Amino acid sequence: MTSVQDAILQRSSTSKYQPDYVIEPETLAQLVHLAAHSPSAYNLQNWRFIAVTAPEAKSLLREAAYGQPQVEAASATFIVCGQLAAHKALEQRLGESVSAGIIPQSIADSWVKAASQSHEGNAQLQRDEAIRSASLAAMSLMLAAEELGLATGAMGGFDGEQLKRHFPLNEEDLPVMLITIGKAAEGNWAQKARRPLDEILTLI
Amino acid sequence: MTSVQDAILQRSSTSKYQPDYVIEPETLAQLVHLAAHSPSAYNLQNWRFIAVTAPEAKSLLREAAYGQPQVEAASATFIVCGQLAAHKALEQRLGESVSAGIIPQSIADSWVKAASQSHEGNAQLQRDEAIRSASLAAMSLMLAAEELGLATGAMGGFDGEQLKRHFPLNEEDLPVMLITIGKAAEGNWAQKARRPLDEILTLI
Repeated sequence: MTSVQDAILQRSSTSKYQPDYVIEPETLAQLVHLAAHSPSAYNLQNWRFIAVTAPEAKSLLREAAYGQPQVEAASATFIVCGQLAAHKALEQRLGESVSAGIIPQSIADSWVKAASQSHEGNAQLQRDEAIRSASLAAMSLMLAAEELGLATGAMGGFDGEQLKRHFPLNEEDLPVMLITIGKAAEGNWAQKARRPLDEILTLI
Repeated sequence: MTSVQDAILQRSSTSKYQPDYVIEPETLAQLVHLAAHSPSAYNLQNWRFIAVTAPEAKSLLREAAYGQPQVEAASATFIVCGQLAAHKALEQRLGESVSAGIIPQSIADSWVKAASQSHEGNAQLQRDEAIRSASLAAMSLMLAAEELGLATGAMGGFDGEQLKRHFPLNEEDLPVMLITIGKAAEGNWAQKARRPLDEILTLI
């Protein structure tokens, strides 16, 4: 068990991994289960995770990630996607919360209406929302991994078109981030220095 | 102390707050300190946080948030911004990591070059990157708050132009999310139901 604060402060973006370390599918699933408890606008849950562990798939993924070696050395790499046009699935996604008595039907209806009005035909908002939700989930996943003693590295450098060609992504899946995960090897950098607080925080 | 897993599973988007509960500035600062330890591409750290606690500022913020009452009831609301054109500040931001011997100068130089080449003149990438970084930081902040016994609510519903008029945001500050924070009152919804895992996870 790791406190949230310790997980945040200890975690460091990792690019060197022990290549023989295996993470069980159950562990990858548990991390996605936790990531999916992140918040999203209207509870859209507009995210999807492809966990890549098979050697041939890793090799294709490495190519799509401009050859970065950590994709093959890590036990797994998550392709974290946000989903476009998620408002179309919202009614169904909120259904379970209504059935369970968590939110009233009237609220679900009003959210579906509001989300549809703002998202329909608004490609920029759909993209923003996909990136926002996927990134929130990605952070939860990385902190949950830290608690399990697993190192992670978030990567923004990849060719989205190549990913779409080689992996089962739908038209609506927008790849937002790759997250490598595994046991850290020797030779990773320490956590990098951060900007001073007074540069990033304004109290009003 | 709360485990990461418990913080993720317990946290629930909160809209009803105890209006008299005060969060000290030191606590708000500590939360931003932690949030800023989130990863960002090239360690851009392209985020900024405005913590709004003064009654008149809360009232203006509530207006910009389409009148949503939790902005006034919460102890504070963070305006979480991503920053555009962050590649221009990257050389300076990596300087401290170089001085501290965390990364070599040659790596800092190559990151500055790569970030400049990809971000310069690419408004969409700058926007994506701002949303990505701010959202990662936002999730760390919310989980850190949960550990302190504080409830949070992420809000995407606000008028960015109105925010820019009433709050000291620069041209580069893109408001990505509001996060209300405080002590939960009675009457909040339980955490909403999540999609089944087999719908969001593919193992390859």
